[in-house]
Amino acid sequence: MSTPAVINVGFVLYPDCTLLDFAGATQIFAFTGVFKPIWIAADLAPIPTTEGVTVNPGATFDDHPPLSIVFVPGGGSGVGKAMLDPKLQGWLKQVTPQANWVGSVCTGAFILAASGALDGCEVTTYWSARPALQLFPTLTVVPGYPRWHVDELRHRFSGGGISSSLDLALRLVELIGGVEMARTTQLANQYAPHPPLDSGDPAEASPELVISLTQSQAAFTASLVDATNQVLAQS
Amino acid sequence: MSTPAVINVGFVLYPDCTLLDFAGATQIFAFTGVFKPIWIAADLAPIPTTEGVTVNPGATFDDHPPLSIVFVPGGGSGVGKAMLDPKLQGWLKQVTPQANWVGSVCTGAFILAASGALDGCEVTTYWSARPALQLFPTLTVVPGYPRWHVDELRHRFSGGGISSSLDLALRLVELIGGVEMARTTQLANQYAPHPPLDSGDPAEASPELVISLTQSQAAFTASLVDATNQVLAQS
Repeated sequence: MSTPAVINVGFVLYPDCTLLDFAGATQIFAFTGVFKPIWIAADLAPIPTTEGVTVNPGATFDDHPPLSIVFVPGGGSGVGKAMLDPKLQGWLKQVTPQANWVGSVCTGAFILAASGALDGCEVTTYWSARPALQLFPTLTVVPGYPRWHVDELRHRFSGGGISSSLDLALRLVELIGGVEMARTTQLANQYAPHPPLDSGDPAEASPELVISLTQSQAAFTASLVDATNQVLAQS
Repeated sequence: MSTPAVINVGFVLYPDCTLLDFAGATQIFAFTGVFKPIWIAADLAPIPTTEGVTVNPGATFDDHPPLSIVFVPGGGSGVGKAMLDPKLQGWLKQVTPQANWVGSVCTGAFILAASGALDGCEVTTYWSARPALQLFPTLTVVPGYPRWHVDELRHRFSGGGISSSLDLALRLVELIGGVEMARTTQLANQYAPHPPLDSGDPAEASPELVISLTQSQAAFTASLVDATNQVLAQS
């Protein structure tokens, strides 16, 4: 294999990001022993997540090793703020052109799109956020609700909602590190998922539940639309 | 529904615990709005995980709200230490008799077994750790590699390795909060897993990979056996 000894994966953390968006991929990458997850933020202060727990960045925008992969998790109310945060957006504009692979999970796609890093690219996102992401005229939201989408031509990747973080990371390990490395971290993590229910995909869940959740997420969706319109007005 | 307004879920953190063991379940619980994940440790110092990242307890053994559920994640070298840690074990002996449900993910079962909380119970654990867990004469390791096992009679639950955290938590939400609450958090988390490979279950992975990983985990397994023998010698 010609893979380097260490492949640094920089996860961008910001207040109100969603835990599993980055923790799931971190877990899959960490057990390869080759991909090294690094949690990066504006400063080293603890990061509150949408789950009510806090985690710690291991590096800052101003001081981190070179990144092979830039990985942007989604979140709650923090997403719109991150789309309009000059420091975070400036950092993305600086590091993404130098990285080999750049991508997101869930509504992290909005943060990355705001930086211009998804211009001309194919992307997926959280199921109820698909229409809002389509407001960006320079990207293509792929059909349906895939667990991940890899735009191999442009070296971009994206995951669906939250838990897709694991499937996406495993696909990236397979693509970049090879199938044996991917199989090894999958078994090491005993990643043979088998949920007791089948409501995880909007195409399988009951219409009543999809409608109900879409309505309860209406304010969040509106915040994404608002931030997207502000980003587009600036550009 | 007669479910209480808030169901506190206490996750026991210790140095070298494994991120997804607790982060996966935290994510599933948090999106119910009813189950409240609380990360608890001996003190509020950041907890290093086996993934090379750190997270923060939100409460301590000496100061936390009453817990409906006690949840013990697995880990690496920290597991043997936690099995023999008087403070952590003393805390488990104090809180588990008062909790409605008590359980573990992965090698967290060893820590819980060391406290006596699994005496007479049916349990599962990480796939390669099954033989070591069988050294405890007072518990029954269930056959195969289930994602979760619920011992409904004794109000104990256990998950397989690491990523089983999500499936187990979803089953607990279904059992305690009802099927509609479980379906809602599943769709909110877009938890319709679909790994790109099928090596997550030792019964499906290639024999060569299972043998290779079992060998590379030999020192870890030996540390579990050693700690178990020390616990049994003390009792």
